[in-house]
Amino acid sequence: MLAPKFDADGLVTCVVTEARSGDVLMVAHMNAQALQQTIATGEAWYFSRSRRSLWRKGESSGHRQRVVEMRVDCDQDAVWIVVEQEGPGACHTGRRSCFYRAVPLGKAGAVTLEFRDGERTFDPDAVYGKTK
Amino acid sequence: MLAPKFDADGLVTCVVTEARSGDVLMVAHMNAQALQQTIATGEAWYFSRSRRSLWRKGESSGHRQRVVEMRVDCDQDAVWIVVEQEGPGACHTGRRSCFYRAVPLGKAGAVTLEFRDGERTFDPDAVYGKTK
Repeated sequence: MLAPKFDADGLVTCVVTEARSGDVLMVAHMNAQALQQTIATGEAWYFSRSRRSLWRKGESSGHRQRVVEMRVDCDQDAVWIVVEQEGPGACHTGRRSCFYRAVPLGKAGAVTLEFRDGERTFDPDAVYGKTK
Repeated sequence: MLAPKFDADGLVTCVVTEARSGDVLMVAHMNAQALQQTIATGEAWYFSRSRRSLWRKGESSGHRQRVVEMRVDCDQDAVWIVVEQEGPGACHTGRRSCFYRAVPLGKAGAVTLEFRDGERTFDPDAVYGKTK
């Protein structure tokens, strides 16, 4: 049976990968209600820790996520969803994926990030409004 | 620059995918030292929340992870590593991936999980010892 092990804040971690590319698009969190609504509707719902509220992915941007498959891990404190991303991207910075910077390996000390697929695919100011 | 945003426990979330299959193998956590050692050595190091200690993946099982690529997300509170998994699997239950159960979509109420690639690829008692 699905018996999620929510943390002290009532959340599980959710890893989101893109069906087409296999890339990790984002890492988000789900509370019981977000998890329930995602399962019931087949669309991604999350819980925003910054806004302290339930959040339907794409509610501002229109960039919804249709869930192709959902899995839960061995100790049920993390879920993995494979999605079809609607629109040009998942990241609030205007990129397809939130993971658009690589960390070079084999270094000690300060590390300079390197862009990977870092081009903006949409204008976040236009999509979310200038106030955000 | 890499400037990880560690949580109140000093951790970032780490998503681990397998280079060969693209599957999510596990979700773990890294503290500053685990992150540093992973970057420096190109092998996966984590912080075990249950044991409260630094943990080199494979130190008990021999099932090490060689990091092919590391990325950091937009707000630097999550990293994604693509790994080559040594040995038969990543999960302490004896499976290749921790995400061996699917959550059927379109349901309300109690949800029965369905196994996916759920066969054990190794015997965890033999690998970790009976006491674990």
